[in-house]
Amino acid sequence: MREKLFVIIFGADTKPGKAFDLILIVLIIFSITIVMLESLPDKSDVFYYRLNVLEWVVTSIFLVEYIVRIWIVRKPWRYIFSALGIIDLLAIIPSFLGLAFSGTHMLVVLRALRLLRIFRILKLTRYMDEGSQLWRALVASRKKIGVFIFTVVVLIIIMGTMMYIIESNQESGFTSIPISIYWSVVTLTTVGYGDIAPVTALGQTLASIVMIMGYAIIAVPTGIVTVELGRKPCAEIIHPACSFCGKKGHDKDAVFCKYCGKKLG
Amino acid sequence: MREKLFVIIFGADTKPGKAFDLILIVLIIFSITIVMLESLPDKSDVFYYRLNVLEWVVTSIFLVEYIVRIWIVRKPWRYIFSALGIIDLLAIIPSFLGLAFSGTHMLVVLRALRLLRIFRILKLTRYMDEGSQLWRALVASRKKIGVFIFTVVVLIIIMGTMMYIIESNQESGFTSIPISIYWSVVTLTTVGYGDIAPVTALGQTLASIVMIMGYAIIAVPTGIVTVELGRKPCAEIIHPACSFCGKKGHDKDAVFCKYCGKKLG
Amino acid sequence: MREKLFVIIFGADTKPGKAFDLILIVLIIFSITIVMLESLPDKSDVFYYRLNVLEWVVTSIFLVEYIVRIWIVRKPWRYIFSALGIIDLLAIIPSFLGLAFSGTHMLVVLRALRLLRIFRILKLTRYMDEGSQLWRALVASRKKIGVFIFTVVVLIIIMGTMMYIIESNQESGFTSIPISIYWSVVTLTTVGYGDIAPVTALGQTLASIVMIMGYAIIAVPTGIVTVELGRKPCAEIIHPACSFCGKKGHDKDAVFCKYCGKKLG
Amino acid sequence: MREKLFVIIFGADTKPGKAFDLILIVLIIFSITIVMLESLPDKSDVFYYRLNVLEWVVTSIFLVEYIVRIWIVRKPWRYIFSALGIIDLLAIIPSFLGLAFSGTHMLVVLRALRLLRIFRILKLTRYMDEGSQLWRALVASRKKIGVFIFTVVVLIIIMGTMMYIIESNQESGFTSIPISIYWSVVTLTTVGYGDIAPVTALGQTLASIVMIMGYAIIAVPTGIVTVELGRKPCAEIIHPACSFCGKKGHDKDAVFCKYCGKKLG
Repeated sequence: MREKLFVIIFGADTKPGKAFDLILIVLIIFSITIVMLESLPDKSDVFYYRLNVLEWVVTSIFLVEYIVRIWIVRKPWRYIFSALGIIDLLAIIPSFLGLAFSGTHMLVVLRALRLLRIFRILKLTRYMDEGSQLWRALVASRKKIGVFIFTVVVLIIIMGTMMYIIESNQESGFTSIPISIYWSVVTLTTVGYGDIAPVTALGQTLASIVMIMGYAIIAVPTGIVTVELGRKPCAEIIHPACSFCGKKGHDKDAVFCKYCGKKLG
Repeated sequence: MREKLFVIIFGADTKPGKAFDLILIVLIIFSITIVMLESLPDKSDVFYYRLNVLEWVVTSIFLVEYIVRIWIVRKPWRYIFSALGIIDLLAIIPSFLGLAFSGTHMLVVLRALRLLRIFRILKLTRYMDEGSQLWRALVASRKKIGVFIFTVVVLIIIMGTMMYIIESNQESGFTSIPISIYWSVVTLTTVGYGDIAPVTALGQTLASIVMIMGYAIIAVPTGIVTVELGRKPCAEIIHPACSFCGKKGHDKDAVFCKYCGKKLG
Repeated sequence: MREKLFVIIFGADTKPGKAFDLILIVLIIFSITIVMLESLPDKSDVFYYRLNVLEWVVTSIFLVEYIVRIWIVRKPWRYIFSALGIIDLLAIIPSFLGLAFSGTHMLVVLRALRLLRIFRILKLTRYMDEGSQLWRALVASRKKIGVFIFTVVVLIIIMGTMMYIIESNQESGFTSIPISIYWSVVTLTTVGYGDIAPVTALGQTLASIVMIMGYAIIAVPTGIVTVELGRKPCAEIIHPACSFCGKKGHDKDAVFCKYCGKKLG
Repeated sequence: MREKLFVIIFGADTKPGKAFDLILIVLIIFSITIVMLESLPDKSDVFYYRLNVLEWVVTSIFLVEYIVRIWIVRKPWRYIFSALGIIDLLAIIPSFLGLAFSGTHMLVVLRALRLLRIFRILKLTRYMDEGSQLWRALVASRKKIGVFIFTVVVLIIIMGTMMYIIESNQESGFTSIPISIYWSVVTLTTVGYGDIAPVTALGQTLASIVMIMGYAIIAVPTGIVTVELGRKPCAEIIHPACSFCGKKGHDKDAVFCKYCGKKLG
């Protein structure tokens, strides 16, 4: 019986398994819609009350599901501390958190994270592949990106402070260094709200430098990820896999498997 | 006779065929100009009336053309449901739609889509190639881009809700979750209108994270498309293999095998 | 004597030639500075008068230079209609244009284009190479970019009109289709001034789509240029040039020249 | 004794050396926090006074450290004029600069630059590698980027002036050419504050061109850096050549020659 439940709840290959996942997704979208409706201004108390009830219904369903999951898996702790388990938990907590701090229950939108399992249902293993390819590319370039972001942050802090020193006497909104650093982020990322903008000649000159920098250095993360994704662009095409060792990733001009030395088909 | 018409209306190689397409394009640009003039404020009724008449003239021409097209093609249904056929229909509908809902007739700008056939007239088969190359690259990377966009959307929903929880008490415009999600899109895409902007320290901190994320993850679609476009050079190889050493990967402009120096077939 | 002048004015290898070019650059920067000063608000008439005189001095020098250039070149017409000749002419016209239309004389900033010859003086042939590499990459991808921009323009027109239909009744600034198309450009390019921004739910939804589109399709031009620049990244490194036919661009794993079949050194 | 100090202060491999660097980082973050607190509005004088004292304490520590560094290195001048030495000096100067010009002492945030040594402590030689890889890529493409930026600047100046000529009569904020050039930067980099925005039809048309240009040419720096970063894979090859067939281009993880199948040395 636990076996059956396991197949239904954790599997996505059987009909009931698919159905189960599908129901979950419907519930998730449903609960997110509730929260959004709830946030809309000037709603009657009755309306609000009903939404609240509906939300608790969904939450309790998820709670039950979570408990069942813990019950049926062989290694509960492994599941609980797995990414999947944490996401499942995050889908429940907010409702209870909402009892303590008003508003926080809206974090149930974290359930949206569970929507990512839609790929599993649609049997889009291909999609998963693509996803994991992207993921691998990002992981492979995490160090480079780390160094890049760290440097950018240092840059942002310095630029922000300089702008504060230059503009703080003006009415241009640079009221403190943290605010100026916020402006620095807004500008370097080319978002540019305009709620804070330099008015002095010197400030605008420095701002121009920040902008051109931001415009130029975006090339760096792009380059990093592109190169990572680009590793062996034509690999799969020519030799899908060595018929002996089954390893992939041979160059298009490879004649022998570079891992086992056997001739490639 | 149907044959003749077919060559004229569907072909673009004969003189009359080119002329026909050219007239179409002139008409399209003409009708789009009409709509734009019409939208300009404080115009006299007479002026408006004339534009209206002119527009109906163009529309009726397109209607006749559409009917003729259906009449002369061998498989009418296939044409009607082809991309081309739908675009042709979209160029007519709005005018009639306008009778029901005022303003909607301005959708005649959808005719602009027909302008893309300009490439055919100019005999820019080369352009078509380029276009289809881009298209293939986008199609080839649709799965990766799909996964990417889906993830980004989930991210946007969560970020938007968090901002709503943080900023909703302020006068900063985060009046509801949908609005906050809209802000989330505006910020993540680095558009940054500034009509909605965080004012609390916490809100600005979260906003900064969203911006840096948006600034960084743009690298992903860029990387995907670049790699796809980059595949081409190794995908289309003129010489599949040297007939002597059988080695692949020769460039288009190669005359001799770059491995054994023998002439390539 | 004409010979001498030619070497001085057109050459940049001899000392006097360098000096001449250097003087030109100083004059250009000087005249641009004049225009900028002139544009600054609340300046006295005397101040204005002096600037005016200075500007005419510079202009007359350039005029003389231009005439001399025409006089000393063997094929005057070829020079006049060459990119260089047109740029030189553009540096003079505005001053006279200013006599007819006030303000237009400020177009003397077009002289800035002549600053690009700074590379020649600094003997930065390397720089020129780099520049022409970029140029070649852009030229090679002009067709792809053309198709891309044309499609984007069609998209912008349609999106702009849709927004006009949706928002024209609001106070959100979509007063006409041209204005809405302008908004469309501002948004798709992720500039986002915020002077015009949707206020209706439907408008904001459509705007979000435009933004995400703009955010995604920037990948296309980037991909195109990157691939063009990336053609044979490691070419030069291994085989600078075939010692027989002198052709470059051999792959790093090439053993024989792929053009003449001779063994590579 | 100087030896010992040298190992502690300049080295990061020994325990004391690590501890020393760690203390430095803590002090840096501490002093930056002080400056930020100080910049916050409406703080009492006492509070300000205390922060001031704390800052001087940190500064004097850094001063002592700097002197010691000079004292213990064999070639003081080389250290003083090295990037590291200048950064260390920049961390001290502002405090004293602040005595002369109020506010400038906030430039102590320049100490943030010293945070980059965090990589050393964490023994993240890998990170340093990544960093220097990025650095090499940027250095290798500096010429191309130089040409690119120079051209962009010329473009910005011309566009800015044209906008000034068109919009200067309006209330749209184009009060002078320098301001218009500032707008030009804000727009071309797609930052788009909106504090200055064109209002005339002609101005908005020109602005649209600037935006699309800015949107398109960002492809250039991205392409440059990507290609440079992409060179790496073929630059650092583990197996220079197969000892049997002498063919190059083997991947890092290759065990056998991919051309002749012989084991690689």
